[in-house]
Formats: sequence, C-alpha cells, structure tokens
Amino acid sequence: MKTNKKNRDWRATLHEIIYGTHTPAGKLFDIILLIVILYSIIIVMLESVPRFDNQYHRFFNISEWVVTILFSIEYILRLVCIKKPRKYIFSFFGIVDLLSTIPKYLTFFFIQSQYLTAFRALRLLRVFRILKLVRFVGESNNLIRSLKASKTKIFVFVFFVLVVSVLLGTIMYLVEGPTHGFNSIPHSIYWTIVTLTTVGYGDISPQTPLGQFIATLIMIIGYGVIAVPTGIVSAEYATTIKDQKDNVEGRSCPNCGAEIHRSDADYCRKCGFKLTEE
Amino acid sequence: MKTNKKNRDWRATLHEIIYGTHTPAGKLFDIILLIVILYSIIIVMLESVPRFDNQYHRFFNISEWVVTILFSIEYILRLVCIKKPRKYIFSFFGIVDLLSTIPKYLTFFFIQSQYLTAFRALRLLRVFRILKLVRFVGESNNLIRSLKASKTKIFVFVFFVLVVSVLLGTIMYLVEGPTHGFNSIPHSIYWTIVTLTTVGYGDISPQTPLGQFIATLIMIIGYGVIAVPTGIVSAEYATTIKDQKDNVEGRSCPNCGAEIHRSDADYCRKCGFKLTEE
Amino acid sequence: MKTNKKNRDWRATLHEIIYGTHTPAGKLFDIILLIVILYSIIIVMLESVPRFDNQYHRFFNISEWVVTILFSIEYILRLVCIKKPRKYIFSFFGIVDLLSTIPKYLTFFFIQSQYLTAFRALRLLRVFRILKLVRFVGESNNLIRSLKASKTKIFVFVFFVLVVSVLLGTIMYLVEGPTHGFNSIPHSIYWTIVTLTTVGYGDISPQTPLGQFIATLIMIIGYGVIAVPTGIVSAEYATTIKDQKDNVEGRSCPNCGAEIHRSDADYCRKCGFKLTEE
Amino acid sequence: MKTNKKNRDWRATLHEIIYGTHTPAGKLFDIILLIVILYSIIIVMLESVPRFDNQYHRFFNISEWVVTILFSIEYILRLVCIKKPRKYIFSFFGIVDLLSTIPKYLTFFFIQSQYLTAFRALRLLRVFRILKLVRFVGESNNLIRSLKASKTKIFVFVFFVLVVSVLLGTIMYLVEGPTHGFNSIPHSIYWTIVTLTTVGYGDISPQTPLGQFIATLIMIIGYGVIAVPTGIVSAEYATTIKDQKDNVEGRSCPNCGAEIHRSDADYCRKCGFKLTEE
Repeated sequence: MKTNKKNRDWRATLHEIIYGTHTPAGKLFDIILLIVILYSIIIVMLESVPRFDNQYHRFFNISEWVVTILFSIEYILRLVCIKKPRKYIFSFFGIVDLLSTIPKYLTFFFIQSQYLTAFRALRLLRVFRILKLVRFVGESNNLIRSLKASKTKIFVFVFFVLVVSVLLGTIMYLVEGPTHGFNSIPHSIYWTIVTLTTVGYGDISPQTPLGQFIATLIMIIGYGVIAVPTGIVSAEYATTIKDQKDNVEGRSCPNCGAEIHRSDADYCRKCGFKLTEE
Repeated sequence: MKTNKKNRDWRATLHEIIYGTHTPAGKLFDIILLIVILYSIIIVMLESVPRFDNQYHRFFNISEWVVTILFSIEYILRLVCIKKPRKYIFSFFGIVDLLSTIPKYLTFFFIQSQYLTAFRALRLLRVFRILKLVRFVGESNNLIRSLKASKTKIFVFVFFVLVVSVLLGTIMYLVEGPTHGFNSIPHSIYWTIVTLTTVGYGDISPQTPLGQFIATLIMIIGYGVIAVPTGIVSAEYATTIKDQKDNVEGRSCPNCGAEIHRSDADYCRKCGFKLTEE
Repeated sequence: MKTNKKNRDWRATLHEIIYGTHTPAGKLFDIILLIVILYSIIIVMLESVPRFDNQYHRFFNISEWVVTILFSIEYILRLVCIKKPRKYIFSFFGIVDLLSTIPKYLTFFFIQSQYLTAFRALRLLRVFRILKLVRFVGESNNLIRSLKASKTKIFVFVFFVLVVSVLLGTIMYLVEGPTHGFNSIPHSIYWTIVTLTTVGYGDISPQTPLGQFIATLIMIIGYGVIAVPTGIVSAEYATTIKDQKDNVEGRSCPNCGAEIHRSDADYCRKCGFKLTEE
Repeated sequence: MKTNKKNRDWRATLHEIIYGTHTPAGKLFDIILLIVILYSIIIVMLESVPRFDNQYHRFFNISEWVVTILFSIEYILRLVCIKKPRKYIFSFFGIVDLLSTIPKYLTFFFIQSQYLTAFRALRLLRVFRILKLVRFVGESNNLIRSLKASKTKIFVFVFFVLVVSVLLGTIMYLVEGPTHGFNSIPHSIYWTIVTLTTVGYGDISPQTPLGQFIATLIMIIGYGVIAVPTGIVSAEYATTIKDQKDNVEGRSCPNCGAEIHRSDADYCRKCGFKLTEE
C-alpha cells in the first residue's frame, strides 16, 4: 500500500516536472528540452550542407544518437507519469514526440543502399521536431483564434484564387504558348499564382505585348486580391481585441446595472453611483 | 389534364433534384456534377502537357466526349424543368453551362488544319467550366458584398495607379532608354506596374544609378499604394462584420418584435416600448 | 451696353459648357475632351514603339498637331470665359493644360539634331496630359482625404524605412562586397529597398551564407514594415468611413437631444420620444 | 561664487542651445547638426563608389576629418552642459554620438595593410550616424507605440513563420534537391522565406512539377501569412487612434475637471457630477 502511494507520489512529482512549468525543476526541464530540440534541428540542418557533412559526419551521427535516446527517454517518461496514456499517444504532441524518435531507429532497416532515398527522407523527417517548440508558445494566443474564426472565409478566398488562376493561366498559355516558356496549362497556372501573389520569380515572364498587357491586368487583380485576406484577418483580429478590451474594462454598476465603463471610471456614467471604494 | 399534372409533378421533382440541395437525390446530383466538373478540368489541363497528350490522346478524347454529352444532358434538363427558360439561358450560369458544351461540338468544323489555332483556342475554352463550381460556393458570402460595396473606390484607385504608371513609365523610358531594356513607353509602363505591385520579375531592371534611384522611389510609392486597396476592403469588411454582429447581439423588442437595437438602447426604436427594467 | 450684356451671356454659356457638366452641351464637351486626351496619350505611347513609328510616322505627326491645336483652343477658351484668369493659369489644372500644348510648339526650336535629347524629352512631356483626366474623377473622394490625413505618419514611416535601408545596405555591402554584385553603398541600399518592399528583381542577390541569413532577416522586417502603412491608411480610412456614416445616420432627438440614432429608428432610444412623422 | 553662477548660466544657455529647440540659437544648432549629419552620410556613401573615390579621395578624407572633429566638439559640449553626464553616455543617443566620432580616430591604429578589413568595417560604421537623425523625429509618435504594443504578437508570428519555413524548406530540399539549386536545408529555408515573404528573387526556383506545386501552396500560405502582421498592427493602430479621438472629443467635467468621458456619459466618472442638463 505504502509502496503504491510512494509510487503515485513519484509519478505526481514527475508529472509536475515534465508537464508543469511552475516548479524550479519543471522550468529546468523545459529549458533543457528547448536546448536539445534546437540543437537537434541545427544538427539536421548542418548535416545537409555537404561541406559540413564531410568534415563532421561522425560527430553528427553521435549527436543524433544522443538526441534520439534523450527524446526516447522523454517519450517514455511522458507515457509513464500521465493518467491517460492513450489520449496522449494520439494527441498532436504525442505523435510529434514519437516522430522525433523513430526515424533514427528505422534507419537500421534502410541502411542498405537500395533504400537510400527512403533513408534520406527519414533523416529529414527529424526536422519535424521543431513542432515540439510549439508547446512552449502556448495555445491561448489570439492569432490562432482569429485564423480559426476566418476559416470559412479563407476557404472561399482560396477557392476564388484557384478559379481565377485556372482561367488566367489558360488564357496566358494560349497567348504566350510553349515557345515563351508557358509549356502547359499547369505550368501557366504556376506562373499565374507566382504573379498573383506578387512573388514574381522571373523564371518565366511574358514576352509578347499582349501577354505583358494581360500580365499587367493579373498584377492589378493581385493587388485587389491581396487586400481580401488581409481585410478578413484584420477585421477578425480587431473584433477579438475589442472583445477582450470590453471584457477587461466591463464592470456593471451595482446601482443601475449600466455596463462597459472606462477602466479608470470611479462613478457610473449613467446614474452617478460611486463604483470604487477609496 | 391528368397527364399535364403528372408532367408538372415530374418537372417539379426534376427541378428539386437539379436546383435544390435539400433532398438526398439533389445532394447526389450536386456531388456527381462536382466530380464531373473537376474531372473535365483536370483532363483539359493534362491534355496541354505534351508528354501526357502523346501517351493518352485517345483516352483524353473519349473522356472529353463523355463529359460533353453529360453536360449537354444537364443543360437540356435544366432548360426543361425551369419555369422561365429564357431567363436561365441569358443568366451568368446559363451562359457558362452552354459554353461548357459547345466548344467540343464546334471542333467538328475546325478539324481542318488551317483553322488549327481557333481549334486550339476552342479546346481551351472548356476550362471555363470551372466557373460552374462557383454555383457550389453560394452567393451569400460577405466577400463579394464587401468587394461590391468598394467598387467605386477600387475604380478610383485603379485609375490613379494607371495615371501614376503612365507618368513614371515615361520618365523611366527617358532615363533608361532602349539600351537597358526599356524598349518603348508601353514596355516601360509594364515594368512600372511590375514594380509598383511588388511583383518584380527582374526580366527588365534599371541599370543606371538615376534609374535605380527612381525605381527606389517607385517601390516606396508602391508600398503606400498597396495600403490603399487593403485599407478600403479591410474597412468595408469590418463594417459588414460589425453590422452582422449588431444583428446577432441585438435583443428583440417584447412589444413589437423589432430587432437590431443599439446595445445601449433603453427604448425600442420602432414602437417606443421600454426595453429595460430599471 | 447691350453688346456688353450679350458678350457676358456668351461667356456665361461658354463657361457652362466648359466648366459645367449638367447641360447636354457640357456633357458632350467633356466626352469629346476625354476622347481627345486618351487619343493623344495612345499616340505618344505608340510613337515610342520603333515598329509603329517607322510605319506611321506621318500619321502620328499630323495627329499630334491636330491634338495640340485642339488643346490650344481649349486653353484659350478656358482663359476667356473664366472670371479670374490669373488664378486659373497658376492652378494645378491651368499648368497641366498649358503643358499639354507648349511641348509641340517648342519642338520648332529644337528641330536641329544637336538638341535631339531635349526634343525627345519634350515629346514625352506630352504624356503628362494624362493628368487632365484627374479632372473627371472629382476631388471629393475619400482616398485623397485619408492619404492627406495620414501625411505626417507616412513621412515618419518613409524616414524610418530610409534609416533602416541605409544601415542594412551598408552591412550587406560589407558582408557581400563588390564581388557579389554589391558594388557600392548606394547600390546596396537600392538592393535593400528592393528586398524590403518585397519587389525582389533578382538582378542582385546575396551569395554568401551570411548574406543570405541577413537577407532573410531583412525580408521578415519587410513583412513587419509592410504592415505599418497598411495599418495607417486602413485605420484612417475606417475612421473617415465611420465619420460619414455617423454623419448620415445622426439625428438628434427633439425631446431629449440624444444623438446618433440608427438610420431606421422611429423612436428615441433614450427617452422613447417619437422621431418620425408617419 | 559669482564665477560659479556665471559658469552655471553659461552651461544653462549651452544646454538650451544644444538640447532645446525653442530659441533661435537652438533651432540654428539643430539645422546645422542636421546638415552635417546628412553631409557626412552622403560622403560615406559616395566614398564606397570606386569611381568617386578615385577622383575625390583627398576631398573625402578632409571632409571626414572636419565632420569627425565637429561631432567630437558636439559630444564634449553635450557632456559638459548636462547635469548627469553618466546617464547620457550610456543612453541610446550617447552611444550613437560616441560611435559617430571614434571610428575615424581608431583608423590610426589600423592603417597598416594587414588590418584592412577591420579598417574598412570601421569606416562604414560611420554610416550609423544616420541614427542621430532619429532625434529630430521625436519619440512621441504613434508608430513606435503601436509596434511596442504588438511586440508579443509579432514574436509569436515570427516564431510561426520560422517553424513553417524550416518544415517547408526541408520538404523542398527533399523534393528538388541539390541538382535544382536547393543545395542544403539552410539554403532551402532561405528560398522558402524569399517565397513566403513574396520577395521572389528567382536566383533559385523550383524545376520539378511537384516542387512547383508545393511552391504554389507556399505562396498561397504566404498570402495568408502577410495578412497576420498587417492585421495586428492595423488593429493596434486603430485602437491607438480611437483612444486619442475619445481624448479629443471628451468634455471636461465642470466640477472636477476630469477629462476623457465616454461620449454618451451623463455623469462625470471621477466625481459623479451631473455632466448634462436635461
């Protein structure tokens, strides 16, 4: 019985360290985790630079194994000290945590040269560990909320962009044709989106006067188009901010019940009742 | 008489299937139509890729005939079951539906090699079938409404962009000249709009220090210019949202049922009934 | 005496035709003027295309003389029928109208080959006739007003953009140097503004890893920077719109004096007094 | 005693000239300082253009010494006439003022050829004198305030941009690979940010159909992403403006003099005094 209780205590302490951020140990755990994540991402990145890989291949490999083992231990500890492990396993962070460890283990099976591409892809999959960082930012920010609120509108917008791109891409394919780099309709649509979003690589650009005239129209449309998502998010975000402000400032008058007083109001603006005790 | 009634019933049922979306049959019709449209657009796109066209030419041709016949049947059914066929024929969707079928039939007449360009243009016209998709998005969205509301302002804005482009394009033509790729005033105007909209292909770019200095000014103007349509749509959209919010938050008057009261209203603005108990 | 009066009448009629837009003759004058302006700008543009100039040189020259004489007549008529000719001459449109005529006359003096550049510049000056179009748009639009209202802020913004550009341009010149296309500090500043405004020609682009890293920072700053003018104009514009709305909707209650009623309010929301007579 | 007082007077007068802007002497000092700063920056810039440096090297060197001595005098005078010199030395402008003088003096030590790079860097450091200009703009503008207010949100935003860039950059490196210019993951991330911010140099661009398809997705994401910081600054700025407006429109209480009342307030929120006569 006592052992059981002790065990539970031990689990609770571990839970506090891993999931909590209030105790010194919890903070230390978070800081170490943050450093290991950043370290592991930098390793993956530098490994892809041929010059560094040739020189430090051994060091990268050892580093990678150390990081993988650390993440494995973290994953097991998270599983051990949580009450509903199944829920954690299938949660967003559960999957991210698992994906942070398995690629390296799987590379055992693909070590043979014929699976080299799969091997390379797996090695790069480790970069998804950066998603572990999302945990540190906190989900209660307004950004995601205002993006979620404007979900439907963004879908409608993306839909219209695609319809316009398909139509204009086809017209440009007809006007410029394969001789000027517009090889096919999908390729023309790629160019249209490059133009419409004002990216403008210049790998393909209209050569004929008519093509340049249509391109000009597309750019001015792109201008109008850029306004739409900005307008949507901007308006949604402004509403979110205002709701919060009202929420914070809002006090109802105990006398007449009038709401939404300025945060520095001492008397009710409706009935003159004193709001604050001095 | 009875036949007539039966006929009407049959028509009403058909109308419900084709134009309605509430019955299971109506939903199924919409889903099939959606798939056929997307299928037909993908076919047109892939046909334009030489590699695919060489390999699957026969398959593309047969697919195209199947889609054309399906759209023809749809067009006739729409005509049959609607009360005012003339209004439908000359409506936006009536024209789109007709344009979705005729190009393939017309290709019979242009099969001879001398009309090849017209033939090619007709084949590509079929991509306009994508406009049939617009039907599925529904016209009651705020996007189009806020774009319509800011119509005049967008016209004024486009007008000023064109005036500025003509003036700056002419100056750049004078400064850089044909030796640096600014071949003519229309070509210079094309470059100015490419720069003003921040697309920046780089197919033409200023070479002289003075030209680069003016280009710098154009870009900073472009920055200011980008703000204007965004500001317009953003403000219009915010107004639309706010109107809707007021609508949602509004209390209905217990006396006359009028809705949309100001949040601080004490009396109903329609019948003068006292809204709040003090 | 009678002649004088007749003369005045004649002037008044002319004034109504030229400056007014309400009479049929005034409208006709405006439409003809609009066509002549657009015609003359298209001529100037096409003249700059070598292919067209070679073929239609004579036609362009005659067209240009006809347009110049028409604009000269217009200028004289405007001077004759206005009460304060001096004010008109030195007004924005007075100068534009004069500039629309003199370049062609001045070409007489520069016909000799040694003044060819000045001659060419003069010929292109005629494109400024497009500013005559501004008359048709009307100055009472909100666009210019909201731009004027945010004048100081835009100045501050442009100032900060320039400071940032000078600093970052110098750093990039130091990092990349003339070997990678960053020939001098002014050239580097040109590149920085091209990047900061998200134009991105690609005529110069960073080659060293450190340069690319700094370029990445500049771009993300550019992102933040793009938000500032948009935010300014957007907020100013929203305020302008709101002021107008309030202005239109605002009626004060004759009983209690409460203002800003909804446009469809029949009763005062403060005291329940009937606002509209039915 | 008298000398001390005289000395103090002399200091106070100097303080008024250097730090104040109200007296004619103070204004003159500011204008001269402004001209010297701009002159010195133009000199640094032109010095970097090889053509100008070859021709006017002597003139640039003398100019630079004159400017350096002037800034040294200014720095000493600022130190002399201020009450708390230590606070000034470690303030933003104190550091900027010191950095405006020392580089030229330090060049004495690096005149030997082996320290040429450090010497060149020092020479360019002088361009940071442009920060002295910030003094003239005044810190009480809304721009900086609304940027500061949205600090946390901008951090969250930049964080998400970086996470997205790392993930998409890795995917593009896998899809396109070194054969199409995506040499390494850091290089791919550079490309992703160039695309996401709609800069689009075109020094690297996707070649495979799959790469172009993913690039298209990145651009449309970039569109949505551009909306976020604009929305943030826009909404924050609108709030700042509105707060000011309320401030301007506010009536002061005749009883206690408190300002900034809500426009529909009937009673003073500070003392409960009745604001409106009924």
